[in-house]
Amino acid sequence: MPEAAYDRLVHVLGQITDLDRTLGLIEWDQQTMMPPRGAEARAEQFATLAGLIHERNTSPEIGQMLDELRPFEESHPRESVEASLVRVTRREYEKLRRVPVELQTELSRASGLAFPAWVAAKKASDFALFAPHLERMLELKREYVACFDEFECAYDALLDDFEPGMKTSEVAAVFARLRDALTPLVARIRERQDRVDGSAFVGDFPAERQRALLLEFLPSLGYDADSMRLDVAPHPFASGLGITDVRLTTRFDERNLSSAFYGTIHEQGHGLYEAGFSSDLDRTPLARAASLALHESQSRLWENIVGRSRPFWTFATPLLRKHFPEQFSDVSEEALFRAANQMKPSLIRVEADEATYSLHIILRFELEQDLINGNLAVNDLLQAWNAKMRDYLGVEVPNDAQGVLQDIHWADGYLGYFPTYALGSVISAQIWERVKADLPNVEDSFAKGEFVELREWLREHLHRHGRKFTAKETVELVAGQSLDPEPFIAYITGKIDELYGR
Amino acid sequence: MPEAAYDRLVHVLGQITDLDRTLGLIEWDQQTMMPPRGAEARAEQFATLAGLIHERNTSPEIGQMLDELRPFEESHPRESVEASLVRVTRREYEKLRRVPVELQTELSRASGLAFPAWVAAKKASDFALFAPHLERMLELKREYVACFDEFECAYDALLDDFEPGMKTSEVAAVFARLRDALTPLVARIRERQDRVDGSAFVGDFPAERQRALLLEFLPSLGYDADSMRLDVAPHPFASGLGITDVRLTTRFDERNLSSAFYGTIHEQGHGLYEAGFSSDLDRTPLARAASLALHESQSRLWENIVGRSRPFWTFATPLLRKHFPEQFSDVSEEALFRAANQMKPSLIRVEADEATYSLHIILRFELEQDLINGNLAVNDLLQAWNAKMRDYLGVEVPNDAQGVLQDIHWADGYLGYFPTYALGSVISAQIWERVKADLPNVEDSFAKGEFVELREWLREHLHRHGRKFTAKETVELVAGQSLDPEPFIAYITGKIDELYGR
Repeated sequence: MPEAAYDRLVHVLGQITDLDRTLGLIEWDQQTMMPPRGAEARAEQFATLAGLIHERNTSPEIGQMLDELRPFEESHPRESVEASLVRVTRREYEKLRRVPVELQTELSRASGLAFPAWVAAKKASDFALFAPHLERMLELKREYVACFDEFECAYDALLDDFEPGMKTSEVAAVFARLRDALTPLVARIRERQDRVDGSAFVGDFPAERQRALLLEFLPSLGYDADSMRLDVAPHPFASGLGITDVRLTTRFDERNLSSAFYGTIHEQGHGLYEAGFSSDLDRTPLARAASLALHESQSRLWENIVGRSRPFWTFATPLLRKHFPEQFSDVSEEALFRAANQMKPSLIRVEADEATYSLHIILRFELEQDLINGNLAVNDLLQAWNAKMRDYLGVEVPNDAQGVLQDIHWADGYLGYFPTYALGSVISAQIWERVKADLPNVEDSFAKGEFVELREWLREHLHRHGRKFTAKETVELVAGQSLDPEPFIAYITGKIDELYGR
Repeated sequence: MPEAAYDRLVHVLGQITDLDRTLGLIEWDQQTMMPPRGAEARAEQFATLAGLIHERNTSPEIGQMLDELRPFEESHPRESVEASLVRVTRREYEKLRRVPVELQTELSRASGLAFPAWVAAKKASDFALFAPHLERMLELKREYVACFDEFECAYDALLDDFEPGMKTSEVAAVFARLRDALTPLVARIRERQDRVDGSAFVGDFPAERQRALLLEFLPSLGYDADSMRLDVAPHPFASGLGITDVRLTTRFDERNLSSAFYGTIHEQGHGLYEAGFSSDLDRTPLARAASLALHESQSRLWENIVGRSRPFWTFATPLLRKHFPEQFSDVSEEALFRAANQMKPSLIRVEADEATYSLHIILRFELEQDLINGNLAVNDLLQAWNAKMRDYLGVEVPNDAQGVLQDIHWADGYLGYFPTYALGSVISAQIWERVKADLPNVEDSFAKGEFVELREWLREHLHRHGRKFTAKETVELVAGQSLDPEPFIAYITGKIDELYGR
C-alpha cells in the first residue's frame, strides 16, 4: 500500500516541520525578545530540540518508508508534490545518515568553543587567538567531507549543504569571470570617489520615526501585518515560522537612515519568498527556499535592483520628505538616487555596496577552498587575506578585527556558505532580465509605488515551487538558463558607467 | 548502579523540561507576538510538541528508571533534591500512565470543538449552544476520573491535577466557612456603596505612559529587566521559560489605570515565584510552583495584601502624581487607598474585588461537584448558576454571556481549576500572618518603596522549594499550619469594617 506509506511519510515530516518551525521561533525570540539572562536555559532548549530533529530526520523509519516508496515516486511526475517530497527527503536523509552522530556532536562542540574564542580574538584583534579553533574546524570539516564519496572535490560537499546540486567548478567559473570583470570596475570607482555623494542619508533619524516610515511603504512591497512582523535584532534576518507567520527583523542606526531602510527591504525580499510557497507544500520540507543563493537572489533583487533604481526613488522621495521633512525637503530625487548608489571599496563585507560586495565573497570562496584542500595553512591565512584585499579591492587591512576576523561564519562552522551571497546577486540579475522580458513596463509601476506585478511574477516563477527542485534546477527554472554572471556584470557596469562615468 | 540510573533520569527529565519551556515560549508568543494568520501553523506546532512531551513523560524508560531508583530514593532524605525528584516524577508518571492515549486525544479533540462553540454561545448569549459540549466534556471527565481508584471522590481526581495531594473534603470545609462569613459581609458592602469612591482611577491614561509608570516601580518589587520582560496580552499571564527568563504580560485600559496597575503587580507576584526556584532544581520538573493555589497566593499577596495597603499607597502616590500629574496632583493618598479598595458585588469574576471574588469561585466549585457527580444536569445549570449568584452576591444575572458563559475554563477542559483562585487568597492571608510574625516592621518598609525583606522571606520559605512537596505539604511548610480560612476572614473583615463601617 504505497499510499499508506506516503501518508505516513507526510505525517512524520509534518511533525518534523512543526519542530523545525519551533526551533525557528526559539531562535527568533533569542535574537529579538529574550532577556539577556535567558541565554543559558535557551541554549539547552536549542540543543534538545535540534538533537530531536536530527534524530527524527535520520530515523530508520524514514529510511524504510523511502525504500518502500521508490515505485510510488516513479509513478508520479517528477514535478509533482508526491515525487518531489520523496526525492528531496531521500536526498537529505542519505546525506544526514552518512554523518556519524559523534562527528555531528563534535562539530557542535567545536563551534560552541570557537564562538567565544572568535569574540575574544576579534576584540583583541589577534587572529592567532582564533587560529587553533579554525584549524580544528577544518579538521572536522575534512572528516565531514570524507563521509561522502559522490562529490568531485571536498568543497562540493560543503557547498551542497547550502546549494543542493551546485558544483564548485561551476561556481568557480562564474566567480572567476566576475572577479576579472569587477576588479577594474572597482579600481575605477576608487579613483572617482568625488562623483557620488552619499551624505544625504546621514543625520538624525529617531528609530521610532524610521519604523513609521518603513511600515508606511512596506505594504506596497508585500508586507502583510496579518501574517508578518517587524522587530529589532542585532543581526537582522527573516524567518518563516509558517507561510502565514513570517518574522522580519531590522536594526536602526539613528545616525544613518540607509541602514534600516535598505536592510528592511532586503529582509522583506527574503520574507516574500517564505510567504510565497504554494499552500500544498505547507508543513512539509518542501516549504523552504530551494537554496540560500536563491533566497539571497530575492533579498538582493528587492534591495538593489528595485530599491536602488530611479523609479523606486520617484516613489520613495515623497515618503522620506513626509517622515523627515527637516532632513529631506531640500534634497532632490536625483540626489537620493545617487546617494543610494554610492560605491566605495572598503574593509567590511556587511557594509559593502553592490559592486564591491562580490569581491569580498570571491576572496572568501578562494581562501576556503585552499584551506579545506590543504593548499593554504591556517598560519598563512592572515597574509593571504590581506594580499587579496589589496589585489581585488585595493584596500590595506589595518588590523585583524577589520580583516580576517570580521565574520562569524567560520566560528559557527559555516564553510561553503559565503558563495551563496554573491550567487544571490548573480541570480537576481538573471531573474531581472527575465522579468523585464515578460513585463516590459514593470519599472514604470515602481514609480507609482506598485510592485504587485513583480511580486506575482516572482511567486509564480520561483516562490511557489519551494524546495521541489535542486538549486541548480531552480535557477534554470526561474532564469531560463544555468548560472551566468553576464547579466549581473552588464547591470553593474551600466550603473557604474552612469554614476561614475565610463 | 543507582547513581547512573539517577543521572539518566536527570538527563531525560532535563530534556523534557527543555521541551516544556519551549512549549511555554510557543504559548507566550501566540498571546503576545504572533501575527493573527500564524494561528493555524501554531496549532500544529503546539499539538506536535505537546504530544511529544506526553510521550516522553509516559515512556516505559522512565518507569524502569523509577523502579530501579526505589532504594536510591529511600536512602536519601525526603526533602533532598534526589528523593524529591524521584518521588514527584513517580507521582506524575503514575497519574499520566493511568490515562489511555485515546482518552487524552478525545479530551483534546473535545476542547478543540468546545472552544469555538463557547465563543459563539457567548456571542449569542445562549447557553443552549454550549450545553452539548459541556455535556460531552463531563462524560470524558468522568471517564478520566474512572482511570483512578485511589481518590475518595470524583472531584478529588480533578482537583489533584492542579493541587497535588489536596482533598475536596478539605477544600469544601474551608469554602463553606468562607461562604458563610463572606455572604453577610458582601450584603453589608452592597448596602453601603456610597462610602467608597473608586473614580480616582478613571480618566485618560495612554498605554505608553502607563507602561513607563509600571517600569519605574516594578524593579522595587523585584522586576529584573535582565531576566524578565513585560508585554501586552489580551488575557494577561506570567510564564517562566527558565528561572532567569520570566515573561510577564499585562493589558492596558486607557480609560482606567487600575486594570494594568493591579494586573501587573499580580503577574509580577507570579513571576517572582517562577524566578525564585533554587538553582539546584533548575532544568528539572521540580522547578515549578507546588500548585496553582500556591502560585495564586503569590500574585494575590502582592496585588492585594501589599498593593492595596495604606503603606503601599504612601509609596505609590508620588509615582502616580509624577507620571500623570494632570490626573493625580489633587488626589490625596487616602483617596487613592480607598479607591484601590472599592468593593462591589458584580457579575463578572475577573472584575471582582477581594471580598466578592471568593464567592464567584465557591459558586463554581459547588456547581462543578454537582455536575461531575451527576447531581446537577447540564440543562439545569443555568438556573442553578443564577440562583447562587442571587444568594451569595445578591445580583441578578441579566443574560448567559454575563453569567454561566463568562469563563473559558470549561470549554478548555479545565474542571477542578477554579478553586485554586480562592485558595490562593486563603493561603496568601495565612502566609501574611507568618510574614508579620517574622518581620514585625515589614509594612513600614513598603511606605519607603522597600520590598526586599518580603521578597527574601517568600523566596526562603516558599519559592526556593519549587515543587518538591505536594500542595498540602507546601502550605504547611510556608504557613506553619494546614489550610485555614480564618486569617483571610479576619483580614477582609478588618478592611470592610474600616472602609464600609462595622
